[in-house]
Amino acid sequence: MPRIDGARLIADLKRMAEFGRYKTGVHRPMLSQPDIASRHWLAERMQEAGLEAVIDGVGNVIGRRPGDGPRLLVGSHSDTQPRGGWLDGVMGVIYGLELARAFRDDSALADVGIDVASWADEEGNFLSFLGSRSFVGELDEAEIAGARGRDDGATLPEALARCGLAGRPRLAIEPGRYAGYLEAHIEQGGYLESEGLRIGVVTSIVGIRAYRVAFTGTQNHAGTTPMPIRRDAGVALVRFCNRIYERFAELSGPRTVWTVGKIELQPGAPSIIPGRAEMMLQFRDADAAVLDRFEAAVHALAAEMNAAGPCPVELERTSDTAPTIMDAGFQKALADAAEAELPGGWMRMPSGAGHDAQILAHKLPAGMLFIPSIGGVSHHYSEDTAEADIVLGCQVFADAAARILRTG
Amino acid sequence: MPRIDGARLIADLKRMAEFGRYKTGVHRPMLSQPDIASRHWLAERMQEAGLEAVIDGVGNVIGRRPGDGPRLLVGSHSDTQPRGGWLDGVMGVIYGLELARAFRDDSALADVGIDVASWADEEGNFLSFLGSRSFVGELDEAEIAGARGRDDGATLPEALARCGLAGRPRLAIEPGRYAGYLEAHIEQGGYLESEGLRIGVVTSIVGIRAYRVAFTGTQNHAGTTPMPIRRDAGVALVRFCNRIYERFAELSGPRTVWTVGKIELQPGAPSIIPGRAEMMLQFRDADAAVLDRFEAAVHALAAEMNAAGPCPVELERTSDTAPTIMDAGFQKALADAAEAELPGGWMRMPSGAGHDAQILAHKLPAGMLFIPSIGGVSHHYSEDTAEADIVLGCQVFADAAARILRTG
Repeated sequence: MPRIDGARLIADLKRMAEFGRYKTGVHRPMLSQPDIASRHWLAERMQEAGLEAVIDGVGNVIGRRPGDGPRLLVGSHSDTQPRGGWLDGVMGVIYGLELARAFRDDSALADVGIDVASWADEEGNFLSFLGSRSFVGELDEAEIAGARGRDDGATLPEALARCGLAGRPRLAIEPGRYAGYLEAHIEQGGYLESEGLRIGVVTSIVGIRAYRVAFTGTQNHAGTTPMPIRRDAGVALVRFCNRIYERFAELSGPRTVWTVGKIELQPGAPSIIPGRAEMMLQFRDADAAVLDRFEAAVHALAAEMNAAGPCPVELERTSDTAPTIMDAGFQKALADAAEAELPGGWMRMPSGAGHDAQILAHKLPAGMLFIPSIGGVSHHYSEDTAEADIVLGCQVFADAAARILRTG
Repeated sequence: MPRIDGARLIADLKRMAEFGRYKTGVHRPMLSQPDIASRHWLAERMQEAGLEAVIDGVGNVIGRRPGDGPRLLVGSHSDTQPRGGWLDGVMGVIYGLELARAFRDDSALADVGIDVASWADEEGNFLSFLGSRSFVGELDEAEIAGARGRDDGATLPEALARCGLAGRPRLAIEPGRYAGYLEAHIEQGGYLESEGLRIGVVTSIVGIRAYRVAFTGTQNHAGTTPMPIRRDAGVALVRFCNRIYERFAELSGPRTVWTVGKIELQPGAPSIIPGRAEMMLQFRDADAAVLDRFEAAVHALAAEMNAAGPCPVELERTSDTAPTIMDAGFQKALADAAEAELPGGWMRMPSGAGHDAQILAHKLPAGMLFIPSIGGVSHHYSEDTAEADIVLGCQVFADAAARILRTG
């Protein structure tokens, strides 16, 4: 079994956390100055680990093991949420790097190997899953040309040029090279912690459907317009939202989640009746049938409100990601490795968050491993995981990778 | 009876609409370039009308009739809402100017006179009712120093200096000079139009109570955080808001209005559970007892939600204006003038909007006249009133002013 070096692993993670440090977390959006610096640093570490490292035309950092023989592709993303945590994403990249080193140093594994990837822009500064979508051939040049950064509004080609990546080729998956794809990630939720477990074997990645729900009313003066003649788009939104919360609770599966993360009333002044109101609604489940019945409920309520008036509702589906099942054999390898290292200390669980593995799964068998998040916190600079859990998770991950390559 | 010149009145209103024209309306926030240019233009017209005109240290434009004898102060504001209408405010200023000219030209009125005012910043770019509050002695230097513009964030003293008004004295009401204050304004609502009437005699200006209602939750990932353990500040806000709408409808007086004009979820991203949520709530009525019972309902619901959890609610009262009764004698003079000009074509009504008259009423008997708003629209560039109604309203207003000064 390959032996990972826990001290080296933690040291690399702490070094990465210096690129864009923000309080106890990291602010490292895709193609920011700290992000591009961290990509060059990663490429150097991959070279040191004996890989041929390339930063490609969308910013993917990919390290390839020279030679032939069975290969696993292992990775995650190293860009972060705005003012996000120090582990979300990059931990899976450094796990990959550590696996490459552990495999290289294990003479019993000389005939197999690990390629490592940091996929560009998983967090969607320009385009969610930019790097993994490009690698599997699901991203065309027109989409790249049209993408703009969240903050400064620069186009993706402009930002790539600013970072010295203009004109570089985009790397694409090489048919037949890989036995599959593995990704490790912090759980981001609180299931493992609440169960007192330290490893999660991911069964599936949830599907997400997201909508922009817009209400049209009539903007007017909040003092002089009598209540009976108002067409208040904000009132319509609040009623819709309240009824959706009630209805979804009735329709929910055991792990379904739903969220209204953004509400905007226009023009948004205390003394003006909103003439327009918008909300961003999403729901997630590993079961497409649950997503279908939630979607039917949204349409039914919108139709009901449109029939009743006075503020028309429009629905726009902004995202539709199908649930992704993780490969059964990979789940078994991860479970066997977890049980060997930590008998009874692990569980199978779906992922409520999206991950690059759901994109790679279009082309390769894919598996994912989770480790606990303290307090279930993520997408916030206070996100954290115990170092012992980080080290343990990597050892289980390395063992699982070896089991897959040995039986593959 | 003084005779106003309808063509001159309309021409002056159209000239004023050129300062800051926006589509069919006007964008002329206090101390913007068009605003300051329009104040100089107004001062020149006042001089031509035989008044001694001054732009004071907060931007008030005040024209005083030389000589002794009974005086009425007549005015309104000439700043506008962002992208607002061409009449909201400035119509009352030009009515005042037209009254000054009509009185000057009527030899039967040589012993009485009209002073004219354009009060600074009624619409609150820096401070709502800045000019009228300064004039009645209810504004101290500290508040002026601390005020900042809505758009560029400049302090009021900086903006005044930029406009060449630094160091000018602030004019203050001269005890004993005035028989009272009159103000004309568009109705901004749809009551007159729906009743087929052309003049409103204002009985009172509603009181307004306004609140910032803030909900504290726990920000987290919208995919990985199970529903039962969420503390979603947005859900708390929507529930509160929905219940307030229901409760207020039960408690409403015949003309009570209530509005949530702004909602903000933080951080406001589709995939993040809101950790904080805020809404701006206000309600208005001419009866303080109605305001009291609405306020009690808000506190009761907040207490109930705080007891139930999981997201604490905080209430901050951001505004509390008492209802203001218009002078009974002035109401009678306006009503008599309306009935003489337009038998049966007018009504008494409260004002749902705030006006400088409520500030002047602290020191002087005050009265207000309304003319119809087409479609009840205001605070929008499409706000409009028929020219015949504008002219008729001014004639009634002039007649009422003469009645007050003759009997005063």
